[in-house]
Amino acid sequence: MTDNPLPSWRESAARTALLRFVAEVTRAGGPRHVPPAERIATFDNDGTLWCEQPLQVQVFFAQARLQALAERDPSMKERQPFKAFLEHDLKTIHALGKQGVFETAFATHAGMTEDEFDAVAREFLAHARHPKLGRLFKSLTYQPQLELLAHLRANGFKTFIVSGGGIDLIRAFSEEAYGIAREQVVGSSVKTRYELRDNRVVLVKAAELGSFDDREVKVQNIGLHIGRRPILAFGNSDGDLAMLRYAVTGRRPGLALLLHHDDGQREFAYDREFRLSPLADALDHAAEYGITVVSMQRDWECVFPDAD
Amino acid sequence: MTDNPLPSWRESAARTALLRFVAEVTRAGGPRHVPPAERIATFDNDGTLWCEQPLQVQVFFAQARLQALAERDPSMKERQPFKAFLEHDLKTIHALGKQGVFETAFATHAGMTEDEFDAVAREFLAHARHPKLGRLFKSLTYQPQLELLAHLRANGFKTFIVSGGGIDLIRAFSEEAYGIAREQVVGSSVKTRYELRDNRVVLVKAAELGSFDDREVKVQNIGLHIGRRPILAFGNSDGDLAMLRYAVTGRRPGLALLLHHDDGQREFAYDREFRLSPLADALDHAAEYGITVVSMQRDWECVFPDAD
Repeated sequence: MTDNPLPSWRESAARTALLRFVAEVTRAGGPRHVPPAERIATFDNDGTLWCEQPLQVQVFFAQARLQALAERDPSMKERQPFKAFLEHDLKTIHALGKQGVFETAFATHAGMTEDEFDAVAREFLAHARHPKLGRLFKSLTYQPQLELLAHLRANGFKTFIVSGGGIDLIRAFSEEAYGIAREQVVGSSVKTRYELRDNRVVLVKAAELGSFDDREVKVQNIGLHIGRRPILAFGNSDGDLAMLRYAVTGRRPGLALLLHHDDGQREFAYDREFRLSPLADALDHAAEYGITVVSMQRDWECVFPDAD
Repeated sequence: MTDNPLPSWRESAARTALLRFVAEVTRAGGPRHVPPAERIATFDNDGTLWCEQPLQVQVFFAQARLQALAERDPSMKERQPFKAFLEHDLKTIHALGKQGVFETAFATHAGMTEDEFDAVAREFLAHARHPKLGRLFKSLTYQPQLELLAHLRANGFKTFIVSGGGIDLIRAFSEEAYGIAREQVVGSSVKTRYELRDNRVVLVKAAELGSFDDREVKVQNIGLHIGRRPILAFGNSDGDLAMLRYAVTGRRPGLALLLHHDDGQREFAYDREFRLSPLADALDHAAEYGITVVSMQRDWECVFPDAD
């Protein structure tokens, strides 16, 4: 343990709350001690662990996939909502709503086996860059959060992602980017088909949505996948509010944190007007819900890692 | 590592295959090396890690729960299929089929929060005994399998349960009995409702089945929960066959094992005639599918742990 486990976090109420919470739940014999097995931390991904503006990376990935599909079937270029994705028509995309946008993205993966999907996703992430920031998408992770994840794991926490994004896209980079194993990723998912191909068992992605992991569904999927109430949860939108409240209303001590994107200089400044994932209720009632608000501008010394 | 990590396994083709496989996949630089992150082992529970005769423990648990419910609502004693459970009417129970039996069992938990369910399950497991063997149900785990789980974990494997049984009943004892954390249990599940009770977020079990984790669904749920193909899978019925074949048809080396209950002296002898979970196809075609058959009678030095 170094003297300063969170060097990219400025002195702030949020940093103090984080360090105090970790110290308290790990103090053997202390009044707020939590056994290691119950030290579950859940993080939203888009906008909490990496950048989600101007659109979630999931949408750029779908766009790349659609370009490949449209080469074989040019009629897709004229069919909505694919046309909007291909033309980056933000107005039409936003009008679909978050679930509609993600379902459209997931539909572009139908028919792929899990191995094929993983290869396509890794190829995309190895090369695709953010249109404005110029960095590789996979380098748009937040340095202060990488330090927090490491600090939690060093203190016996198991760290999970609980995201509205597609579970297998996140799994394609979560180990490399966050040190979070594939089996510790919870996300939206499509149904799969079991098939035998040349006597090999494969899972094939179907077009049908299995679970859209947002709002109350995040709590339900935590129950299904993890089977424990987290004691720390971190989000950045109203889609995370149910999970944040879940973390702070159990028998154990709990800490809920909400990242506010108020940094138009270093990243983006937005909250209630971001139609795909607005932040309003959680921000307006943070104190009432027992949620600690983190200001990107005020509380973070840097935003992205140095390397790209 | 001791010289003999599997003392309750007799010298046999199965034991040799297990030890060789673990040695090969962990040998750095070797031709069959598998990185630690991909050393996923999946075990069925009923009949593979603990006893499932004359009925799965899930059914005895439902029976106990029904007795409590029937005290408040005596009409349940006259309503099928509850009547059959309460009277231990095996013929009627078997006629429901595996999914019907388990769905009936799950229905007895509707309305409970996750915490309430966990308390009821732990109370049951602390006291309930097998009607014939006299041991606590939770002492009906198989000693050779406990040694195998420990040997795998000592070699960097992550061990998972993938069971047709109810996910939360298994979670109530998996850490104590097997050293398997709640989040590494995959099983059948009911849907849950998100509720606010006194401003506390709770998950409440619904009567509706979410997933019946049997046959091909085991593979689909491995994809959803774990997101990796296991390299070792262990089962004991045709309900496990899809998972066993999944483990041995990937890019990596794989090992699939099938426990044959042929030991009427120390446990039970059964296979194709057990209506709730028959073993026929997997046994008849084991060689063709690349599955190693384990004979309880021949290959295990002992069956249950000494302590009760």
